[in-house]
Amino acid sequence: MSEFTAMRRVAVVAPHPDDEVLGCGGTMARLASAGSEVHVVIATRGRPPRFSDGYMDRVMAEADAAHAMLGATRTHRLDLPAAELDGVPAAEVNAAVGACLDAIAPDTLFLPFVGDIHLDHQICFTAAMVWARPRSAGAPERIFAYETLSETNWAAPGTTPAFLPDSFIDISAQIERKVEAFAAFRSQAKAFPDERSPQAIRALATMRGTTVFCEAAEAFMAVRQIWRAA
Amino acid sequence: MSEFTAMRRVAVVAPHPDDEVLGCGGTMARLASAGSEVHVVIATRGRPPRFSDGYMDRVMAEADAAHAMLGATRTHRLDLPAAELDGVPAAEVNAAVGACLDAIAPDTLFLPFVGDIHLDHQICFTAAMVWARPRSAGAPERIFAYETLSETNWAAPGTTPAFLPDSFIDISAQIERKVEAFAAFRSQAKAFPDERSPQAIRALATMRGTTVFCEAAEAFMAVRQIWRAA
Amino acid sequence: MSEFTAMRRVAVVAPHPDDEVLGCGGTMARLASAGSEVHVVIATRGRPPRFSDGYMDRVMAEADAAHAMLGATRTHRLDLPAAELDGVPAAEVNAAVGACLDAIAPDTLFLPFVGDIHLDHQICFTAAMVWARPRSAGAPERIFAYETLSETNWAAPGTTPAFLPDSFIDISAQIERKVEAFAAFRSQAKAFPDERSPQAIRALATMRGTTVFCEAAEAFMAVRQIWRAA
Amino acid sequence: MSEFTAMRRVAVVAPHPDDEVLGCGGTMARLASAGSEVHVVIATRGRPPRFSDGYMDRVMAEADAAHAMLGATRTHRLDLPAAELDGVPAAEVNAAVGACLDAIAPDTLFLPFVGDIHLDHQICFTAAMVWARPRSAGAPERIFAYETLSETNWAAPGTTPAFLPDSFIDISAQIERKVEAFAAFRSQAKAFPDERSPQAIRALATMRGTTVFCEAAEAFMAVRQIWRAA
Amino acid sequence: MSEFTAMRRVAVVAPHPDDEVLGCGGTMARLASAGSEVHVVIATRGRPPRFSDGYMDRVMAEADAAHAMLGATRTHRLDLPAAELDGVPAAEVNAAVGACLDAIAPDTLFLPFVGDIHLDHQICFTAAMVWARPRSAGAPERIFAYETLSETNWAAPGTTPAFLPDSFIDISAQIERKVEAFAAFRSQAKAFPDERSPQAIRALATMRGTTVFCEAAEAFMAVRQIWRAA
Amino acid sequence: MSEFTAMRRVAVVAPHPDDEVLGCGGTMARLASAGSEVHVVIATRGRPPRFSDGYMDRVMAEADAAHAMLGATRTHRLDLPAAELDGVPAAEVNAAVGACLDAIAPDTLFLPFVGDIHLDHQICFTAAMVWARPRSAGAPERIFAYETLSETNWAAPGTTPAFLPDSFIDISAQIERKVEAFAAFRSQAKAFPDERSPQAIRALATMRGTTVFCEAAEAFMAVRQIWRAA
Repeated sequence: MSEFTAMRRVAVVAPHPDDEVLGCGGTMARLASAGSEVHVVIATRGRPPRFSDGYMDRVMAEADAAHAMLGATRTHRLDLPAAELDGVPAAEVNAAVGACLDAIAPDTLFLPFVGDIHLDHQICFTAAMVWARPRSAGAPERIFAYETLSETNWAAPGTTPAFLPDSFIDISAQIERKVEAFAAFRSQAKAFPDERSPQAIRALATMRGTTVFCEAAEAFMAVRQIWRAA
Repeated sequence: MSEFTAMRRVAVVAPHPDDEVLGCGGTMARLASAGSEVHVVIATRGRPPRFSDGYMDRVMAEADAAHAMLGATRTHRLDLPAAELDGVPAAEVNAAVGACLDAIAPDTLFLPFVGDIHLDHQICFTAAMVWARPRSAGAPERIFAYETLSETNWAAPGTTPAFLPDSFIDISAQIERKVEAFAAFRSQAKAFPDERSPQAIRALATMRGTTVFCEAAEAFMAVRQIWRAA
Repeated sequence: MSEFTAMRRVAVVAPHPDDEVLGCGGTMARLASAGSEVHVVIATRGRPPRFSDGYMDRVMAEADAAHAMLGATRTHRLDLPAAELDGVPAAEVNAAVGACLDAIAPDTLFLPFVGDIHLDHQICFTAAMVWARPRSAGAPERIFAYETLSETNWAAPGTTPAFLPDSFIDISAQIERKVEAFAAFRSQAKAFPDERSPQAIRALATMRGTTVFCEAAEAFMAVRQIWRAA
Repeated sequence: MSEFTAMRRVAVVAPHPDDEVLGCGGTMARLASAGSEVHVVIATRGRPPRFSDGYMDRVMAEADAAHAMLGATRTHRLDLPAAELDGVPAAEVNAAVGACLDAIAPDTLFLPFVGDIHLDHQICFTAAMVWARPRSAGAPERIFAYETLSETNWAAPGTTPAFLPDSFIDISAQIERKVEAFAAFRSQAKAFPDERSPQAIRALATMRGTTVFCEAAEAFMAVRQIWRAA
Repeated sequence: MSEFTAMRRVAVVAPHPDDEVLGCGGTMARLASAGSEVHVVIATRGRPPRFSDGYMDRVMAEADAAHAMLGATRTHRLDLPAAELDGVPAAEVNAAVGACLDAIAPDTLFLPFVGDIHLDHQICFTAAMVWARPRSAGAPERIFAYETLSETNWAAPGTTPAFLPDSFIDISAQIERKVEAFAAFRSQAKAFPDERSPQAIRALATMRGTTVFCEAAEAFMAVRQIWRAA
Repeated sequence: MSEFTAMRRVAVVAPHPDDEVLGCGGTMARLASAGSEVHVVIATRGRPPRFSDGYMDRVMAEADAAHAMLGATRTHRLDLPAAELDGVPAAEVNAAVGACLDAIAPDTLFLPFVGDIHLDHQICFTAAMVWARPRSAGAPERIFAYETLSETNWAAPGTTPAFLPDSFIDISAQIERKVEAFAAFRSQAKAFPDERSPQAIRALATMRGTTVFCEAAEAFMAVRQIWRAA
């Protein structure tokens, strides 16, 4: 029996719907099949005029379909303004993210990477880290940062924080489900060679897998891990 | 049941006897009480004229006593030349470390930190990493670097690799045993304010603990973690 | 006679009251006894509804008491909004911090660390650095970043700036005063194993001290030092 | 024939007028003489009451004169508020910068450095990087970050991103023109030893040159380079 | 006409045969078809008893076949001892590498990455950098570090130098030739999911490509680039 | 009275003669005029056949002349083999460097930078750091790393340790003496634009100076500073 099952109540924070699938769709599916609770926290929702309500409803429905395929327990929506998080007081973002995580009480957090080019990713990472400060024994036992195709690779290497994965989760048995779940996001998928494509998702999974002698894997940076006494 | 028990066969690589206690004595004790196999690999032995045989026999006996207190399963001695590892061909160090680890077949490795000021620490880290390359499904599932008082703090901050711990193991119930195990090394202990003293060991454990809301902890950098499919 | 006495007019910038004590309370006491002017700049004050005026008055009185114990020359309050600095235009924060520092004309600055998890810390650091740009011979001769328990350790190691101290000030004779000064902040202190506790303060001072063969020390990162011609 | 001529349509993003001259005035002149289009994008304009209209008109006229000396093709003004970019929603800055760069369609970008102490520099860097995401074959083939005297050296070494140049352009034949172009900014130049002085400009060019065996050079960090198939 | 053709005389330094193909086989093929001279410098040759002569002859013949497929101009063999470079005085390695590069007089260097786990890679990188010091106008105009499957990914992220590519060469038209050239190394290829497999090569090329909107690419770190005056 | 006078007994470690002048010749002169003892430790001496005895005698005489001009108290020669330090057991280098520093008992150390391209520089840095471990109250109070033209700039930015100076010593009154002292090394000086030229020395001093509003300065990285209790 593997320690994988120690992640019993998991929260994946997604700045925008589909980040969670790109970053840890395979892990979500594997955790769900193993019987863990998998919560998704969608931090933002696009607002008119930048994003029409019709468009956003479609995206949210796509997310629901994707999460169902992956076996997610529940999707939580914070409805903060997408692509405009930098204009919301940090205390407000922190409060919204914190309240949701308080309710979930996860033992494991998957967060977008602080070095992603999108400010919303950076802000969501920080908000979750503020919540996760170990001010009680109930703080989450594991925090991982995931990588997001089309966000993580497009910052400036050497001058912005680098995604250097140290933690790998085998998703050989889940990679097809991950690709299908991403395909549910018809509004977000692009044709290869764009990074938001099945070919890019497969190539990344293969690369991350072969690095640790798996056929497919998702890779993470361990941000904080605590092995508390029983 | 905690994932801590997933570390069932553990190898701690120590460049010199007592590094393993300073770096992970508490973790060793906790793992041993939890029923895990805990192997110590002492990479070097001082040689005359730098170190007399009598002195080294005494140190090795101290190590035996310390390991017994901590419940270690077995101590493996490679007897490479202490403080002279830079003069041994890397391939030879790698072979010696590798053969021993092959025999142990650990799922979890604890290594000295590559940024420690002592070259022996750097070389042992690298030799173990060479062995641990994931060229089969049997590669270790977890590799952690530990910190060693009097080695890790005395490199050059900002220009040599920095020890930035992300993984914390609660040793509140083991800190006394750790201090006693170090006290077994009469030949190595120094009077406070030297770092090789009980006061320094306690302060470090308190600091690493309080960072994650424990009374005492040992801190590590996660070097590589793999959650393979069952 | 030591160069310590060269710090004759010192400004400690604290985002919130008590940061200055956690970060350099011992140094403040030592400087004050050595006859230096020690100014504290409290950048923010909590505002209703987040913080009641009564609560803030109590905190400010605690700060006054703490500063008196440490022998501080004067406490300057900028009353910028606490936990909301990210909503104030940077130019305004810079102006407020700059005007105060202009009036103090310090030769030495102690600043919160730019990698602290709290945005207020990051913003105060930057504002002071903007003021300190060496555009005249009157720019401060020394700038140090201090560490703050409960802020500096809770960012993300490896992806946010790391606090790697290179400068250590012996506070063996001042550690008791530091602990007492922090105790004055009844509203802020927490029970161990929280980092905001006497035990954590002592452990950190011991650790930073033993690293340089002192019984207790405060540790800093040297940000900029200038040895001008006489 | 040198690959230098491959930079045929170049955009230099300047947070404030004169940054482009300090950072790549020599390169602009060399590119212009080689027949390339050289566009300057001045992102901000100071606003009353911080900056009077008269003052800003003078600065903009100085910029025109400088750009003419350097042979720039065209100066684009975005008129975002100077020293207040942190108060403009990122999406708005991104949109303004993006629209201008869309119109220019440069193959090569020169950007201010993300680690400069001035927030406007950081924000302009990021806005241009957002535009430059390689979501089509038309994304720019080369992105360089330039250094700006009085901005790049005054951040905090070791804790903010470091300017570590890897790319050097020989401007031995253009250094005089660069110094003259900067002299056109009468409102911005300061007396040595201030960094905004001819002596500092010459010294930096000499230093960057001698590092690669040239008499004078400008130095850059390569942020992204793409050698597409023909 | 692209600047790609500016790389007219290229040297690829390979610690061991096949590193050059894994790291820049596609680029070699593309450069060769574009009419550039492509020299390969094989730094080492395995020696008995570690490697039999028969085995090494076979490997070298595989290399010849691979280089012919890629259109390499010439293969230079230094025959330094493989996996034992750390035992050769640095001055001797530098001399051997330097003499060969002097004879080739390349304008462009492709080097193994200094952060690769294999010491031979680190030593070859440094030796070539010593040769490339810009002590005359004849120093190479471009130096890139390439990544090597099974070497670059297996160091310790965050504590050893990180491969963070900033330079991408489209090899969509060459990826098949690269895979075939690697297949020529029958003695070196392994079955997927080992990194030394066609699947891993393809996945890496796809990943590096999609990052910059190409179907396949090789990625590099720009170490030094100089645009000299004509 | 400035804290500069606190550096009363200074040791400058030079891997090869002239490094000390390039790195801190101005500081040596300023310290000597201020009445401090300034010791130079020349770690190596070239050996036949690489360097003839006649040549080395000449270089050593040049060093004597240069040190006299700068007012150095004494020159200590360790005569370890130049350009071959990597072949000497680290313990032997450490012993030689340590014995010399023990005899000098400096309160302040100036060391070559660990990221310099020359292995001798890296090894001398480390040997001195091993000696300087704070295992007693007599450990040096200040350790600075200096930069060396033709060594510090020619490593690989972003992958080898970066020289990011935080400490600046005004040498406006000493720059001429520094240039003359370097000129004493007729065997080492080269014609501009080589870095080992008066023009490069002046440009670097001007650059480092203007960064902190001085006409000329030498720049350092603070490696460790301790303000002990009196």
